Amino acid sequence: MTDAATIAQLDTPALLLERGKVAANAARLRAHIEALGSKLRLHVKTAKCLEVTRMVAGDSGPITVSTLKEAEVFASHGYRDILYGVAFAPGKLDRALKIVSSGVELTVVLDSLESARLLAAAIKGKAEKLAVLVEIDCDGHRAGLKPGNPEIVEVARALAGSGADVAGVMTHAGGSYDCRSIAAIRAVAEKERAAVVEAVTALRTAGFEAPVVSVGSTPTATYGENLAGVTEVRAGVFVFFDLVMAGIDVCKVDDIALSVLGTVIGHQREKGWVLTDAGWMAMSRDRGTSKQPVDQGYGIVCDVSGRPIEGLIVSDASQEHGIISHRSGDPARLPELPVGTRLRILPNHACATAAQYDRYSVLDGSDRIADTWERFSGW
Amino acid sequence: MTDAATIAQLDTPALLLERGKVAANAARLRAHIEALGSKLRLHVKTAKCLEVTRMVAGDSGPITVSTLKEAEVFASHGYRDILYGVAFAPGKLDRALKIVSSGVELTVVLDSLESARLLAAAIKGKAEKLAVLVEIDCDGHRAGLKPGNPEIVEVARALAGSGADVAGVMTHAGGSYDCRSIAAIRAVAEKERAAVVEAVTALRTAGFEAPVVSVGSTPTATYGENLAGVTEVRAGVFVFFDLVMAGIDVCKVDDIALSVLGTVIGHQREKGWVLTDAGWMAMSRDRGTSKQPVDQGYGIVCDVSGRPIEGLIVSDASQEHGIISHRSGDPARLPELPVGTRLRILPNHACATAAQYDRYSVLDGSDRIADTWERFSGW
Repeated sequence: MTDAATIAQLDTPALLLERGKVAANAARLRAHIEALGSKLRLHVKTAKCLEVTRMVAGDSGPITVSTLKEAEVFASHGYRDILYGVAFAPGKLDRALKIVSSGVELTVVLDSLESARLLAAAIKGKAEKLAVLVEIDCDGHRAGLKPGNPEIVEVARALAGSGADVAGVMTHAGGSYDCRSIAAIRAVAEKERAAVVEAVTALRTAGFEAPVVSVGSTPTATYGENLAGVTEVRAGVFVFFDLVMAGIDVCKVDDIALSVLGTVIGHQREKGWVLTDAGWMAMSRDRGTSKQPVDQGYGIVCDVSGRPIEGLIVSDASQEHGIISHRSGDPARLPELPVGTRLRILPNHACATAAQYDRYSVLDGSDRIADTWERFSGW
Repeated sequence: MTDAATIAQLDTPALLLERGKVAANAARLRAHIEALGSKLRLHVKTAKCLEVTRMVAGDSGPITVSTLKEAEVFASHGYRDILYGVAFAPGKLDRALKIVSSGVELTVVLDSLESARLLAAAIKGKAEKLAVLVEIDCDGHRAGLKPGNPEIVEVARALAGSGADVAGVMTHAGGSYDCRSIAAIRAVAEKERAAVVEAVTALRTAGFEAPVVSVGSTPTATYGENLAGVTEVRAGVFVFFDLVMAGIDVCKVDDIALSVLGTVIGHQREKGWVLTDAGWMAMSRDRGTSKQPVDQGYGIVCDVSGRPIEGLIVSDASQEHGIISHRSGDPARLPELPVGTRLRILPNHACATAAQYDRYSVLDGSDRIADTWERFSGW
């Protein structure tokens, strides 16, 4: 890609980011969480970008990461309070302790006595220390121990004095993505809170200090009404938002800060198809709206200024071809979009779409490229 | 990631490539195409890797690319005969001509009089020349003009003498991915061949030389029995193969050269789940087998040596978590896989999975990392 002063000069496909929307999305969620007496621990896995993280979490965090690579990159830029939110396998210990030795307070999570014993054995004799949160399963969607499980306390006992002592509990209400109403999200948020409060009470009753009580998902963070007993809230996708979040009323379509710029490369007029150079490599293969009431295909099509074009979605995609059509399938409802026309496409899932790119072309509400921000990938 | 001598030392997730399988897959397809009197023009979009391309296509090609970035990278490494196989929009002309000026014979494709006129106008007065293939629609799945469409000849007339003259025709039988039998693939292959032969005959009858007649998709290239009149066959995914190809009998599961190495990070034993650090970021979001008779989830689970473990698939995934279960859903049929166990996962779609990585850890049939090959991304 070449340096570009405006959208018109960008090679396509390209990833556009509306900086003002990021700032507004972040301010709104932070205010909500702080009004409830807790604090935000940004999840950096969505943006994987220093500038976005600085805008949302400041120069030092705290942050959540989904990979040790993220921890390493942000540690190298001065972030000192990092939670690695994926269950820790002992084979990752040397790399984790190297991050600790650079001056970072690194917290890891695990959810079994098996993992606790492996970590206690592996960290024995090391100079560096880890903090550990016991992962709690609040909704059955993935990992964690159920709140009433006595193994929670056994994990803390297995790790006590090992150099990887338990500092509290965490959970992630990933099931909130499947909610179909704000009331349902609020109920999940309360279940999420209640699960960690129950779990940490068991730890404290057993004599552990366990100061950290961590919850989080963008839907529950947005709509939760009670954070009593919760010390921090983790969320990530809210920085950009996407069509999956819009589909469950966690944001408006207009809040989505991320879009893919593509170019019309052809037509199949009798079928009502416009072909673009933004295929699934540009959008990712994520079809997260496919099970929602409104399936957005591979994304909502907007004009180059970002205004949705009535009824147009990317209805199918191959590696470097997007097929745009009207939702109705009616060729007559397709506007004239000549070869060379530039369009923006709003993604289903910001984390997946952004991961297809190595940079953001940053906009400030006009067609001028205000900045270019690097983003990293890999593990 | 760190330098590793064996699979056991690799940080996970990591992308493994069995070099011997690539060589065997390539030799088999090349022999088949050459026995039918045509030649292979490798599609480099699957591997995006110099070493894989050299192994399969030699030091100079010919090659097919899906992006100008691929054309630029391979041009810089001495490839001189490059077909850019996605319909050309005039906004890409300056970048394309820069590749031509580096000594490359660059061929582009388009499928409308609208695009032909735009290209003829844009290239007027330029020193560099492009060759153009008219894209033909052989199966209705994506782009191209139908074989009998008089616009094919009009495109050639609009471009004649412009510096972007028509050199022939091309098609891609992408519909072959939906075939459910070898007989059906053979029928699609013959339709693919017949479509371009009809189209090029129209051009030649109208007085154009049109020497190039290009077809290709991995299924039709594998099973086509007649390439009369076809000057070249394009295919890409055969270098690695994947579960989508295995699902339509284009390869055996054992031919799949690409796998993702992951580590067990936890369990939900009562549900029959094994959790790993190979989520959708490691596998891609591709669910290409979901509409096949056997849905492979996010991939077939193998032991660390690459042998499939009976019945195990990645049944669900979040960004950095894979959920492995037995196809039957029966927790009792899950083998014991302790935390820290390394597993290999065969992908649905090699192009999508490989795109999540910046390198291949190359194997020669043992657990030793024989080499590390870079792979590039982006446009």
